[in-house]
Amino acid sequence: MRGLLMERFSFNQATAKHWPLPDLVAGCAAAGVRFVGLWREPVLSHGLARSAALVRDAGLSVSTLCRGGFFGADDWREDNRRAIDEAATLGAPVLVLVCGGLAGRSLAEARERVAAGIEALVPHALDAGVRLAIEPMHPMFTADRSVVATLSGALSLAARFPPAAVGIALDTYHVWWDERVLPEIAAAGSRIACFQLADWVLPLPADVLVGRGLPGAGCVEFGVLLDAVARAGYQGPIEVEVFNAELWTRPGAEILRDTIAAYQAVTC
Amino acid sequence: MRGLLMERFSFNQATAKHWPLPDLVAGCAAAGVRFVGLWREPVLSHGLARSAALVRDAGLSVSTLCRGGFFGADDWREDNRRAIDEAATLGAPVLVLVCGGLAGRSLAEARERVAAGIEALVPHALDAGVRLAIEPMHPMFTADRSVVATLSGALSLAARFPPAAVGIALDTYHVWWDERVLPEIAAAGSRIACFQLADWVLPLPADVLVGRGLPGAGCVEFGVLLDAVARAGYQGPIEVEVFNAELWTRPGAEILRDTIAAYQAVTC
Repeated sequence: MRGLLMERFSFNQATAKHWPLPDLVAGCAAAGVRFVGLWREPVLSHGLARSAALVRDAGLSVSTLCRGGFFGADDWREDNRRAIDEAATLGAPVLVLVCGGLAGRSLAEARERVAAGIEALVPHALDAGVRLAIEPMHPMFTADRSVVATLSGALSLAARFPPAAVGIALDTYHVWWDERVLPEIAAAGSRIACFQLADWVLPLPADVLVGRGLPGAGCVEFGVLLDAVARAGYQGPIEVEVFNAELWTRPGAEILRDTIAAYQAVTC
Repeated sequence: MRGLLMERFSFNQATAKHWPLPDLVAGCAAAGVRFVGLWREPVLSHGLARSAALVRDAGLSVSTLCRGGFFGADDWREDNRRAIDEAATLGAPVLVLVCGGLAGRSLAEARERVAAGIEALVPHALDAGVRLAIEPMHPMFTADRSVVATLSGALSLAARFPPAAVGIALDTYHVWWDERVLPEIAAAGSRIACFQLADWVLPLPADVLVGRGLPGAGCVEFGVLLDAVARAGYQGPIEVEVFNAELWTRPGAEILRDTIAAYQAVTC
């Protein structure tokens, strides 16, 4: 029931952080990859219009753009409007939102600020045809990266807005541990705007942000989650997005090769 | 409404890990502390009967014993029965359960094993007059320490058993980030068997286990959680239990003094 999984594979640029965009695009095209997940900083560094043309000319589609959000920042409104525009230019149907941490506020205040921020962006997102995907992040990031800590919290937040404008970004790394994850994936249904794979690997490194593993390297049960997401009706691209300091030291082509192999192993 | 908070203060032994038990007991008694939370290893090292007499003769009560659980281990049954007996000997009404990580099993299997383990212990706990307190632990510990990751998960598990035998151990460090924490504390009601305070401090250290802060040092909103626990009807001891590698290097009497000051500051 998982269906045509290699055709749905998307290589997220953050997995090969230091691979220049033209090389990454050429490598993906040569490997028969159809989707890439892009990040704003390297896209802007290469040039937005040039990046869009590069991807398009290679026959690739952009599954997601990372990232908007960080609603605690002073310039959140302008920055998120630009992010939406960039996603539209790239043809990315989804902008992933990393909603931001406490930034000196209480949890309740920070969460209300996120809700108000998303509300303010909805009209522009609808105009641009870009869906905002709220990403619940692992609770070890609640204080500094995302006060949206659970799928439950992300869904409650998304429910305030039209489904065409706001969905959720489901990353196995952030949600695998949750007792409620399976019923909540079922409840999420068409709110699932993007699906990313990364594994939980022990021991955690000194910088917990960059210690994720390629699928299969750790203890996440990908089969269980893939099936749940399929049953929920999601049929879009499946990204592998792995932040791993060791992986990043290797040549991009090797990282892509190993990522495809890892993806195939857990989705077969 | 929080009520008589200094009278409810309990100093958990783990906060001054290297302070010999006799010194800790004498220090607490001299400071007017009424409760201590003890750990099995230092208690057994000092001698169980001697420890019980030491605490009793100093006029102190043992609020909790840490810890049973680790149901993934081969000897879980005998070890947990001994832990219950030790708690009874110490006069501790509560044995905290750290339920154990995956230990090579799937999440579902590991969680069922925890449930089956607790079920097997309930008769002995009731006989001994010791309540088992399931501790939901922060999801960064799901893989290796506790597959019970949320208050929701702990309450679902506890609900299978008589309230006199099984409650939950609520530690602010483990639950503060959860979008559902306030309604779930309300739902927990008399299932709250113990309440521990520790703060979430950034950056996380290389060993995330030992990077907790004294209350007030980080971003946990103690007032909100204390009020929620009071409204839920809990009137028992409030422990400060802080695992902090830097704190542990200091003299026990200093740690106790600073812990009392931190407790008073967040509970006033």
